[in-house]
Amino acid sequence: MNDAAINLAQKFELFNEHWQPKVVAEMNDYQFKLVKVQGDFVWHSHADTDETFLVVEGELRIDFRDRSVTVSAGEMYVVPKGVEHKPFAQSEVKMLLVEPKGVVNTGDIASDRAADDDVWI
Amino acid sequence: MNDAAINLAQKFELFNEHWQPKVVAEMNDYQFKLVKVQGDFVWHSHADTDETFLVVEGELRIDFRDRSVTVSAGEMYVVPKGVEHKPFAQSEVKMLLVEPKGVVNTGDIASDRAADDDVWI
Repeated sequence: MNDAAINLAQKFELFNEHWQPKVVAEMNDYQFKLVKVQGDFVWHSHADTDETFLVVEGELRIDFRDRSVTVSAGEMYVVPKGVEHKPFAQSEVKMLLVEPKGVVNTGDIASDRAADDDVWI
Repeated sequence: MNDAAINLAQKFELFNEHWQPKVVAEMNDYQFKLVKVQGDFVWHSHADTDETFLVVEGELRIDFRDRSVTVSAGEMYVVPKGVEHKPFAQSEVKMLLVEPKGVVNTGDIASDRAADDDVWI
């Protein structure tokens, strides 16, 4: 059991790279990951799981094939499993992801944007 | 699929009662719940699941039988399954809970503090 609470702002100060989620906590078989993103990601989907985005700073746009959703600081959005999506951030966005342990950021496609899925900070 | 992001501050404006979690989103078989709390809760534990607290405003103290953890705004804490705990807030705290669908706030004990477990806002 952890001795102290997890301070998100302090954890965000520990890294600067984009599109490389870092695990900060586990709950059952789910993980909470911090990530900084900027620019365009790749189109992908997760066949077996929903994916939760909670924006801490900045404004994220999630493009779907037929529309877009904007997620600003203090807002969250759950992308349903199997739905193709592409995150985009005009300026840097800091956010918290919630997803099952073992989920890869690029979902079901092979991509050089795939990050290691179990890096803790 | 939701048309818009979920704005936590706007959702918090929709209720004022304490210790009555409101569901704002589901991810697989997990729920995200907003709750306002103040004062002492009851000692309880959840035999089958961890429980995540993410404080949005205020300062929460989680008492355990042998120590306490303080969780301030912008911080999160995961209480492991089976561990007795008692949340306490000197002043009102607004927070986001993450737990499996169907979890009752008072865990494994019978209590008049038990809230309905599937109230959406």
